[in-house]
Amino acid sequence: MKIVLAPNAFKGCMTASVAAEAMRAGVLAALPNADITMVAVADGGDGLVDVFTSALGGSTEYVTVSDPLGRPIKAGYCLVREEKIAAVEMALASGLALLEPGKRNPLLTSTYGTGELIAEALKNGARKIVIGIGGSSTTDCGIGMATALGAKFLDQHGNALNTIGKEMINVCDIDLSGMMEHIKDTDFEVACDVDNPLTGDKGAARVYGPQKGANPQQVEELERGLCHLAEVIKDKLGVDINNIPGAGAAGGLGAGLMAFLNAKLRKGIELVFDTVKLDEKMKGANLVFTAEGQIDFQTKFGKAPAGVGQLAKKHNCPCIAIAGSVGEGINELHASGITAVFSLCNGPVTLDEAMKNGPQYLQKVTEQVVRTFAASL
Amino acid sequence: MKIVLAPNAFKGCMTASVAAEAMRAGVLAALPNADITMVAVADGGDGLVDVFTSALGGSTEYVTVSDPLGRPIKAGYCLVREEKIAAVEMALASGLALLEPGKRNPLLTSTYGTGELIAEALKNGARKIVIGIGGSSTTDCGIGMATALGAKFLDQHGNALNTIGKEMINVCDIDLSGMMEHIKDTDFEVACDVDNPLTGDKGAARVYGPQKGANPQQVEELERGLCHLAEVIKDKLGVDINNIPGAGAAGGLGAGLMAFLNAKLRKGIELVFDTVKLDEKMKGANLVFTAEGQIDFQTKFGKAPAGVGQLAKKHNCPCIAIAGSVGEGINELHASGITAVFSLCNGPVTLDEAMKNGPQYLQKVTEQVVRTFAASL
Repeated sequence: MKIVLAPNAFKGCMTASVAAEAMRAGVLAALPNADITMVAVADGGDGLVDVFTSALGGSTEYVTVSDPLGRPIKAGYCLVREEKIAAVEMALASGLALLEPGKRNPLLTSTYGTGELIAEALKNGARKIVIGIGGSSTTDCGIGMATALGAKFLDQHGNALNTIGKEMINVCDIDLSGMMEHIKDTDFEVACDVDNPLTGDKGAARVYGPQKGANPQQVEELERGLCHLAEVIKDKLGVDINNIPGAGAAGGLGAGLMAFLNAKLRKGIELVFDTVKLDEKMKGANLVFTAEGQIDFQTKFGKAPAGVGQLAKKHNCPCIAIAGSVGEGINELHASGITAVFSLCNGPVTLDEAMKNGPQYLQKVTEQVVRTFAASL
Repeated sequence: MKIVLAPNAFKGCMTASVAAEAMRAGVLAALPNADITMVAVADGGDGLVDVFTSALGGSTEYVTVSDPLGRPIKAGYCLVREEKIAAVEMALASGLALLEPGKRNPLLTSTYGTGELIAEALKNGARKIVIGIGGSSTTDCGIGMATALGAKFLDQHGNALNTIGKEMINVCDIDLSGMMEHIKDTDFEVACDVDNPLTGDKGAARVYGPQKGANPQQVEELERGLCHLAEVIKDKLGVDINNIPGAGAAGGLGAGLMAFLNAKLRKGIELVFDTVKLDEKMKGANLVFTAEGQIDFQTKFGKAPAGVGQLAKKHNCPCIAIAGSVGEGINELHASGITAVFSLCNGPVTLDEAMKNGPQYLQKVTEQVVRTFAASL
């Protein structure tokens, strides 16, 4: 029997690859001779680096880069040398979680560190770079990122600007001539599940600025900066990024990646599934498992388990989902190819207990499901 | 697909028949055309009346009888008129739970009320009476029970004694001539899962007296009473009950039922399964479910789910167990025919939440199991 294990991460409890290992142990306890394929997945939120490291057999490379305020910080990215693929999570270099609440101010933060991670990947041979852009602390339209790769953003006197949010308004010219040479022959793919434009009421500043620490005046200052920069980009680079869906993701990093690196924005699960070759790995499967910390009717909105279910359905294969917590409306997931949903909790337990024993519980319930499924064969 | 639902009660949460109904709703949500057989079960502990009422299509009849201290109390027993079968639980008339802690004293309590329930069943035509004897507050060797059915226990002056624990020592003669006439042509079967003898260190007084409220002196007074009464029974009735395994169950009610009603003691699950015809009902089943509040390795020691699993195994049918709480060592249950064990909890929940939502959770997880099982067909 061929069984595919395609869990997402259990936030705060275990990574997708740890979950896959636990499920593997459960399958083997039930069917010692099962043919098991483990493909940790993600949907563009956390976990890209873990997933690519585990699913593609890559290594996690640690580098010292700049945090959102320019302080040194260690961050990891995934490098798959043979396949020349890398995965970068902006949250690990430029994320909101890296800043103490009192230091959160997108006028002062920069995506420079994310650019440094991309630069490292390029230097190490990556020619396809996947970028996860959730959880940003920045609203700099990606000028920090581009600067780390050799771009220059110049003021009216031709001097290079400090590439933080509040300097966007001062950009008068853009010089991309010094950018790293391999950028042109590298595919950049961005996992992006929002479709906000760069500016306006649904734009990066007004929608996401407040949660990054900007007060109303600062939000409008950022909005003016983004509008101005979009004009300069259109004028100098001939690219109109303002209204492309997703341009406003991650404080305009979506727009910057498109404008400066010619990146493509894609739905997180499509991008991840393509890269880990989930479709191919499901060929001939008799049973597919997926998993995530919380599963409910909202899972159908682009979350990894629903994507796994849809692929399983295409392969006419049942798909069982396991969650830490099973919420309301799981029947709505059957249309997404999810056959059934189980909780890993083995009785009335606290959240702490469930978190602490997550892998062990997951192993146990996976075993029970396989035993049940195999019993009817 | 034929599916048999054979749950035990979930103590403090739902009866076996409520559990069976919840599971039925779950099966139908997954397979609207399933052929469902519901057989609530019990293992001789609580729940005999509920199980027989639901499994045999009987009615629960309520009667006013004497509680352990002679006070009036309403108690129910199960009557299946067409089949002339009744089920009586001694705990409902003579149980420890009926007494406030300060009133627990087996020198003063009587099984008279249990006898009244049996008398009612006989009057209403029952010719097979099943008696559950768990949870007793008494140590009267069943003389109260027998008295309610017409027996007389006489002192040295030929006067009828008050049939409570402390009068056992005063019994000099036994007169069964006035007992109800149909007793002779009635089968009495007692669900008994302990094998204590009537007297001695493993007997009814010394092992179970303390938990019924007897202090050490009272325990020895009861022990002397039991020893004396056993001699009188041997002398006057020609029955040596002292060392029959189970004679010491329920304060000697086991011995009394054998001596005065010619009852047979049987393992609870054997007796219940025979009476509800579980074996017959499993014929042709594709999937069997069982359930109980707590399931762990101890379940294999004569608990209902293990019995259900064993029968399912005999029919080469997989058996899924669902528990409120799944404990350690469930792998040890596979030998008892239990294919897999699931908890009904859908995430980290409190015991209160699990109790309150038990039927709803049970329905939901049953649906998931059936969907998983059916997916491989």
